[in-house]
Amino acid sequence: MTKRRVFYISDGTGITAETIGHSVLTQFGGVEFETTRLPFVDSMDKAREAAERVRKEGEESGLRPIVVNTVIDPEMSLLISDSGALMLDVFAPFIAPLELELGTKRQPRVGQAHGLVNFQEYESRINATNYALSHDDGIDPNFNDSEVILVGVSRSGKTPTCLYLALQFGIRAGNYPLTPDDLEQGELPQKLLAHRQRLFALTIDPIRLRQVREIRKPGSRYATLDQCRYEVAEAEKLFKRERLPVLSTTHTSIEEIASKVLQALGIQRHLF
Amino acid sequence: MTKRRVFYISDGTGITAETIGHSVLTQFGGVEFETTRLPFVDSMDKAREAAERVRKEGEESGLRPIVVNTVIDPEMSLLISDSGALMLDVFAPFIAPLELELGTKRQPRVGQAHGLVNFQEYESRINATNYALSHDDGIDPNFNDSEVILVGVSRSGKTPTCLYLALQFGIRAGNYPLTPDDLEQGELPQKLLAHRQRLFALTIDPIRLRQVREIRKPGSRYATLDQCRYEVAEAEKLFKRERLPVLSTTHTSIEEIASKVLQALGIQRHLF
Repeated sequence: MTKRRVFYISDGTGITAETIGHSVLTQFGGVEFETTRLPFVDSMDKAREAAERVRKEGEESGLRPIVVNTVIDPEMSLLISDSGALMLDVFAPFIAPLELELGTKRQPRVGQAHGLVNFQEYESRINATNYALSHDDGIDPNFNDSEVILVGVSRSGKTPTCLYLALQFGIRAGNYPLTPDDLEQGELPQKLLAHRQRLFALTIDPIRLRQVREIRKPGSRYATLDQCRYEVAEAEKLFKRERLPVLSTTHTSIEEIASKVLQALGIQRHLF
Repeated sequence: MTKRRVFYISDGTGITAETIGHSVLTQFGGVEFETTRLPFVDSMDKAREAAERVRKEGEESGLRPIVVNTVIDPEMSLLISDSGALMLDVFAPFIAPLELELGTKRQPRVGQAHGLVNFQEYESRINATNYALSHDDGIDPNFNDSEVILVGVSRSGKTPTCLYLALQFGIRAGNYPLTPDDLEQGELPQKLLAHRQRLFALTIDPIRLRQVREIRKPGSRYATLDQCRYEVAEAEKLFKRERLPVLSTTHTSIEEIASKVLQALGIQRHLF
């Protein structure tokens, strides 16, 4: 089956175009798409070049391409639409109603959304990333400055979630891996209980955990199904006893885990 | 000035709604917005609750709220529009033209875009994140499996970029901090030159670098302006001599750095 060509064209990174394009296209389950991101199309020459490429690939594939466009400049957008593609302009439908509602005209500036970097924002992301790295895996068990502390057995998804919270939201997230000692004693360490309202527990299906650990340490006792079952069962008992909010990461994307953590702990934060 | 209330309402994480909403609203420079994300609105009850909240906050602020909506279910969306807010429906404008173009109806499934996790995708992100962590800051200088290797002086932005590439694109990115020895010798280590086509250099304004280092190690020689100037000048000479692609991170967001790295190295990868 010929795949339908899709181009995400943007005057910035193309992340907005790809995010919404992906969301829309996944609603058409039966169709196969081949997607290409064309970022930093921020001049008439680059717009012409992009249009040329779209036209050419459309002709080669024999199917009209689809363009998801976030280029703000109307002249550049017009050039791109010359490619003959189906143009889906992400911003266009919202401009008129917003101008009417807000009683002001938009001031389009190329690449504005991700372009002009606010130093404070940048710094909060970098600092949060450093925080996550230095409070990963129990390295520094001082969680006084943590906004979020993830608890769970080794390889339950704590580290990527902490890094995602840091990079996307600037949130200082630490994590604490439950040790066999913790599990045997059946209680959380005192230093964690002092921050109870910031704790969030992650769990995972033992069969999935075994797969993940097996890649990490092939043939180890740590990666056996028995060990994974034991740790997960004990950890879940502990979470229940301590009444911690719990989420299984087995069928959950990093975005979803992060969003659910923020929701459960009542943290409102902007996405960068 | 009263801020205009904006709600990002979604049946999933709300990331798509917030991404596009932010991009659109930043085009209205003079207006102040107060934004709230309402994720996981995936039932009639939750839709009713969300509408209630929007209506209430609108009444309190005395200004009509704006809703950026990515809830796919038409009945739930209708309930939300009962709130009296200006509804900006992210998907609606694209559905009819796409159905026509593709000759098929969409099959809306709640939370689909980020909901059903593809294990392979998840694994590639987790593996790439582990890779970035184990190839950060010259810990493991074996870059054979790296798709990207970032080079630059300490605190030029390598680590957050590698982690972002891993989490958002599943790319295995390593980084190598240029040591005073490298700078004095004026050449890249042999182990890097073997991967020349995957190298990308980051630089930074020395004044900015001093600020970043000063936070990290206050009062150190490492953080003096002289030292920062010297290292950046030598590093830039080296990049030029070796003809590496270079980007200054001083006024560049992490998204932009990542996109430009991918573009320069010719890597096409999907955003997760």
